[in-house]
Amino acid sequence: MATNRYMDVHDGFVGVTKEQLAEAHAADLAIEGEEGVHFEQAWLDPESGKVFCLSTGPSKEAVMRIHERAGHPTAEVYELSIEV
Amino acid sequence: MATNRYMDVHDGFVGVTKEQLAEAHAADLAIEGEEGVHFEQAWLDPESGKVFCLSTGPSKEAVMRIHERAGHPTAEVYELSIEV
Repeated sequence: MATNRYMDVHDGFVGVTKEQLAEAHAADLAIEGEEGVHFEQAWLDPESGKVFCLSTGPSKEAVMRIHERAGHPTAEVYELSIEV
Repeated sequence: MATNRYMDVHDGFVGVTKEQLAEAHAADLAIEGEEGVHFEQAWLDPESGKVFCLSTGPSKEAVMRIHERAGHPTAEVYELSIEV
């Protein structure tokens, strides 16, 4: 199973704290292994409410399923096939 | 001068190659010091044309000025005050 890198984007996290983001991230980490996904890092701009998650996994759909089951679905997932 | 972390997003890089992304990134690196900015990494999804750049610097405006002078302006810059 190929491992690709993904960036996904969430909206609506205005005013969310570090503790709340850590809790959301932990919910992903708790189940990510079931889909062969790993969420490496999450960054939040609490002013705009944007969250960016960097992950690895077999497919966009696998990333989306973990986020959905963890309670924070997003349809905005990009496969990062090129990086510098 | 405070150093903050930023994510900025570009659209329209459909079909761009690794070499072209490296060239664009090098154009940022060549002048970033003039604004106290550092572009750490850039990721591209050549299918959707999205680029995500992770940087540090003193302000959103400084990040925007470097990208604009390097030839790839974007208004979409987020200050990532929280990360996990």
